[in-house]
Amino acid sequence: MTTRPSKELEVFDNPQPSREYTIRMNIPEFTCLCPKTGQPDFANLTLEYIPDQLCVELKSLKLYMWSYRDEGAFHEAVTNTILEDLVAATSPKFMRLTAEFWVRGGIDTTVIAEHRAPGWRAPEPVELP
Amino acid sequence: MTTRPSKELEVFDNPQPSREYTIRMNIPEFTCLCPKTGQPDFANLTLEYIPDQLCVELKSLKLYMWSYRDEGAFHEAVTNTILEDLVAATSPKFMRLTAEFWVRGGIDTTVIAEHRAPGWRAPEPVELP
Amino acid sequence: MTTRPSKELEVFDNPQPSREYTIRMNIPEFTCLCPKTGQPDFANLTLEYIPDQLCVELKSLKLYMWSYRDEGAFHEAVTNTILEDLVAATSPKFMRLTAEFWVRGGIDTTVIAEHRAPGWRAPEPVELP
Amino acid sequence: MTTRPSKELEVFDNPQPSREYTIRMNIPEFTCLCPKTGQPDFANLTLEYIPDQLCVELKSLKLYMWSYRDEGAFHEAVTNTILEDLVAATSPKFMRLTAEFWVRGGIDTTVIAEHRAPGWRAPEPVELP
Amino acid sequence: MTTRPSKELEVFDNPQPSREYTIRMNIPEFTCLCPKTGQPDFANLTLEYIPDQLCVELKSLKLYMWSYRDEGAFHEAVTNTILEDLVAATSPKFMRLTAEFWVRGGIDTTVIAEHRAPGWRAPEPVELP
Amino acid sequence: MTTRPSKELEVFDNPQPSREYTIRMNIPEFTCLCPKTGQPDFANLTLEYIPDQLCVELKSLKLYMWSYRDEGAFHEAVTNTILEDLVAATSPKFMRLTAEFWVRGGIDTTVIAEHRAPGWRAPEPVELP
Amino acid sequence: MTTRPSKELEVFDNPQPSREYTIRMNIPEFTCLCPKTGQPDFANLTLEYIPDQLCVELKSLKLYMWSYRDEGAFHEAVTNTILEDLVAATSPKFMRLTAEFWVRGGIDTTVIAEHRAPGWRAPEPVELP
Amino acid sequence: MTTRPSKELEVFDNPQPSREYTIRMNIPEFTCLCPKTGQPDFANLTLEYIPDQLCVELKSLKLYMWSYRDEGAFHEAVTNTILEDLVAATSPKFMRLTAEFWVRGGIDTTVIAEHRAPGWRAPEPVELP
Amino acid sequence: MTTRPSKELEVFDNPQPSREYTIRMNIPEFTCLCPKTGQPDFANLTLEYIPDQLCVELKSLKLYMWSYRDEGAFHEAVTNTILEDLVAATSPKFMRLTAEFWVRGGIDTTVIAEHRAPGWRAPEPVELP
Amino acid sequence: MTTRPSKELEVFDNPQPSREYTIRMNIPEFTCLCPKTGQPDFANLTLEYIPDQLCVELKSLKLYMWSYRDEGAFHEAVTNTILEDLVAATSPKFMRLTAEFWVRGGIDTTVIAEHRAPGWRAPEPVELP
Repeated sequence: MTTRPSKELEVFDNPQPSREYTIRMNIPEFTCLCPKTGQPDFANLTLEYIPDQLCVELKSLKLYMWSYRDEGAFHEAVTNTILEDLVAATSPKFMRLTAEFWVRGGIDTTVIAEHRAPGWRAPEPVELP
Repeated sequence: MTTRPSKELEVFDNPQPSREYTIRMNIPEFTCLCPKTGQPDFANLTLEYIPDQLCVELKSLKLYMWSYRDEGAFHEAVTNTILEDLVAATSPKFMRLTAEFWVRGGIDTTVIAEHRAPGWRAPEPVELP
Repeated sequence: MTTRPSKELEVFDNPQPSREYTIRMNIPEFTCLCPKTGQPDFANLTLEYIPDQLCVELKSLKLYMWSYRDEGAFHEAVTNTILEDLVAATSPKFMRLTAEFWVRGGIDTTVIAEHRAPGWRAPEPVELP
Repeated sequence: MTTRPSKELEVFDNPQPSREYTIRMNIPEFTCLCPKTGQPDFANLTLEYIPDQLCVELKSLKLYMWSYRDEGAFHEAVTNTILEDLVAATSPKFMRLTAEFWVRGGIDTTVIAEHRAPGWRAPEPVELP
Repeated sequence: MTTRPSKELEVFDNPQPSREYTIRMNIPEFTCLCPKTGQPDFANLTLEYIPDQLCVELKSLKLYMWSYRDEGAFHEAVTNTILEDLVAATSPKFMRLTAEFWVRGGIDTTVIAEHRAPGWRAPEPVELP
Repeated sequence: MTTRPSKELEVFDNPQPSREYTIRMNIPEFTCLCPKTGQPDFANLTLEYIPDQLCVELKSLKLYMWSYRDEGAFHEAVTNTILEDLVAATSPKFMRLTAEFWVRGGIDTTVIAEHRAPGWRAPEPVELP
Repeated sequence: MTTRPSKELEVFDNPQPSREYTIRMNIPEFTCLCPKTGQPDFANLTLEYIPDQLCVELKSLKLYMWSYRDEGAFHEAVTNTILEDLVAATSPKFMRLTAEFWVRGGIDTTVIAEHRAPGWRAPEPVELP
Repeated sequence: MTTRPSKELEVFDNPQPSREYTIRMNIPEFTCLCPKTGQPDFANLTLEYIPDQLCVELKSLKLYMWSYRDEGAFHEAVTNTILEDLVAATSPKFMRLTAEFWVRGGIDTTVIAEHRAPGWRAPEPVELP
Repeated sequence: MTTRPSKELEVFDNPQPSREYTIRMNIPEFTCLCPKTGQPDFANLTLEYIPDQLCVELKSLKLYMWSYRDEGAFHEAVTNTILEDLVAATSPKFMRLTAEFWVRGGIDTTVIAEHRAPGWRAPEPVELP
Repeated sequence: MTTRPSKELEVFDNPQPSREYTIRMNIPEFTCLCPKTGQPDFANLTLEYIPDQLCVELKSLKLYMWSYRDEGAFHEAVTNTILEDLVAATSPKFMRLTAEFWVRGGIDTTVIAEHRAPGWRAPEPVELP
């Protein structure tokens, strides 16, 4: 099993595709470079999704995140790119990526992007007492 | 009374099947093995359900959870498998399993899966002042 | 006035039966025995109800709770039994019993059961600024 | 101005009867006697109301509460009686009394009673960003 | 620029009358006199409004609040009077005044009054993820 | 790359215009001058928006905020002006600016202004369990 | 066993007089009368002591506190009187009484009085890792 | 009993002069005028003392604080003056006055002054487990 | 009275030089320029001192802080300079300045500097129960 | 590098043996078996030490902890054994192991053991202002 940074996202078959369930991953160790100054940027990413036929494999996700370490990336662009790559790899019913970037120039930025499969509707939530 | 790990889930007759009520169990001591590396994984499980004719017996639930101690199990799969086993054993009206796995590769994962009996609808909640 | 444990629930006439109002009682000192091992179990009970013609008397409620001290009782069963006894004694418009049992076998259990009088509907709540 | 306990509730003209507004009073120093044992009971009262033509005067409210100091009173009854006296004195559009009694016999009790003027409906709340 | 207490509320043209926006002012230093005993009362005021053509000027608001320092004022009346003066001066689309008075006679009182311009409806709020 | 205060807001093409996503920026270092007294004012700004074709560039936003350092500006006006400049530069689908100004004259003020593109409606939020 | 208010403090033999240990009692339901106005005062009392040969009996302590319900008492005096009565009844090695009175005239008062037996020295506290 | 502001501090005999005990009073409703601008200032005062032969009477303390309502007073001076007046009236063994003034000119100020009777030494504190 | 930024620190005679007391001022609105980039820096300052013969006047302190608004200043240097200026102006017995600067380059810096008059010793603190 | 459970603790040379510094490791995933019942136990371990010539290697520490997964171990014994193994491997100046075991039989247990090298004295702590 490789342990090099890689843009390759491995997937595996959703073990229970007949049920809509939620997977939530917190990825606090994301770092990339500022495309303007070349200095490091840091972010806390939160990935939430309802899989369809495929799930993203945890280790390849780690290596994928690692692959941004030496790349320049604007906040808004990299959040959308990561979401798109994850959507392309897994075709989920719903996916949301929240990227909380650390303060730069006295300003801190959060970008939140979602994908909804065409025609998909969120199930009505059940609130137990 | 046996105290060996076991996949056998014992049930008992719901003492009050004519009423919809909630049972919530917190199971903080779940551990299994990573199927890729063989290393231990840990999770905090929360089980919530509205029983129909059967309830799951507490001690057999503990032994059932123990049975994963030496098994390899992916996060998404084991959450769904446990839910399915519990649904198969008790045929509840509603059941939700939340599995919060500890950080691996700098990423922590939560999987939340639900079962709803066909045709069942959640009762309208009563909010008292 | 007796001070022995007793299954007898005393009631008194609702002093204001023409108004729907809420009575909430917190009963943190409930203890019974595990029917399998005979060891003590502990729970925090919360009783909430809207009375109709009768209210439950506080001291008899205390003695009633005391009566479980030397009885074996499963979590799910005892919660429903207490609710039923209280419903039988007071015929309330609405009653909810929440029983939070302490950890046993590494698992802690909460059982929440409700009674709604046939045809009764919860009044629309008023939210003041 | 008298400073003796008194059941007399003084009122004054609502200074702005054309507007629906909220008056909320916290009364943490309520004490009465247990009608069974004669021992002191204590409660924290919260009064919330939307006045119509009359408001309750603060000092007379204090003396009114004081008047229960030497009276025996059940939790449920005294809460409803106070609400009724306040409704009789002020004929409000809406009034809610919450009485949180201190622990007795290991059980603490809260009673919440409301009055709504016939035909009155709560205004839709405005939530500002 | 005068710095004397004054009932005169200065206003200025709303710099952006074509947009509904919220102005929220916290005024923790309000004091007046009890009209019965002549003793000082204290309150924390919160003013929230959606202006129409006019905004209230900050310094004149401070001097206006100061003008109550030597005036007797009942809790309910002064809250409504201040709201009315502010409404008369600025004709806002919506205005809410919350006055939290300090404890007197063991009771603390909060008065909350609102003005809504005839025909005005609150805009539907936007909740971003 | 210039580092002088500037009213010029640079923008860049929204990297993902086909998706509605949220950008939230916290700008705690805003300062301007009081137009009446010439003394410094301070505020914490929060900018939230859903971009259409354009995003605001982070560094130019910092320089834009810096440009108010030596300008006189009323609380209500400067909040609306900044929102308008940002709307003019980026034509977003939705934009909200919250400006929390520090206490002046014993009163602290928050101004919250929103822009909604004509015909735009907020998407229904998805709540995952 | 009587249940009338009483100034009689019952004691019992310290079951372990050869050891210095701490007894801490919280008494939140103390009420007496203001000796100037006759109006009720309220306090939360905390009693802490290291017994010598005698301990104070719980129920008699409750009845003792009740005995102040109809007595006029200044804050400073009643705190010292209660301490003295408890010292006279139990001759403790150390005793501290903390009385937190509710706000009166916009001022709230706490009185803290201690007794140390002649020649007694507090044991050096042990800090465990 | 007068209820006018007054610089006269009434005292009463310490009910227990043979014991060193603490009296702590919180006085959140202090207000005076700025001697430069004539505008109101506000402070939260905390008075802590160990009395010798005399205690300060609560109501006269309230009227004394009230007497500053229309007086100009610098923060540092008024704190010391109040302490001196209280020391002159009661000759305590120890007295500390903490005055937390509200923000003025973007700066908030706290002044803390102490008096120790000549030759007095604080008793060694007792820490109970 | 001038309201222009000024390096002139006004002082006034300590109203009680025979007593050692503490003055603590929180100054959250400090801003200067980075001497390398010319960009704004921000800090929260806390000044604590025991005056000897002189106190610093509040308004001149505000104008003094304002005087740094257009000056370049390194974090460590400006903290020490301000302390020195305040020491030179007031010759206090003790003075401590804490400057908490906002994050720059992903690092936030706090500088804490003290002055002690030659031969001065801090008084032993009194801890009341 | 092996990834099997192992009792072998690897070490590496302390990179700065001339300085006393602290290493603190939190190990929340410890599990072993109860030697009486064979059922799983769980604990959170905290290791703190001041190294002398050697440091413990992180991965071997993980594998060492893993080695207890299938071993029976009493709480008190296993805490001391782990401390001894770590002391034997690294000969530290100071080492403390805190083991917080999860509730068993309604009781949760924490065991804290320390090692101090002969003649070693902890440096006096420096408290900065």
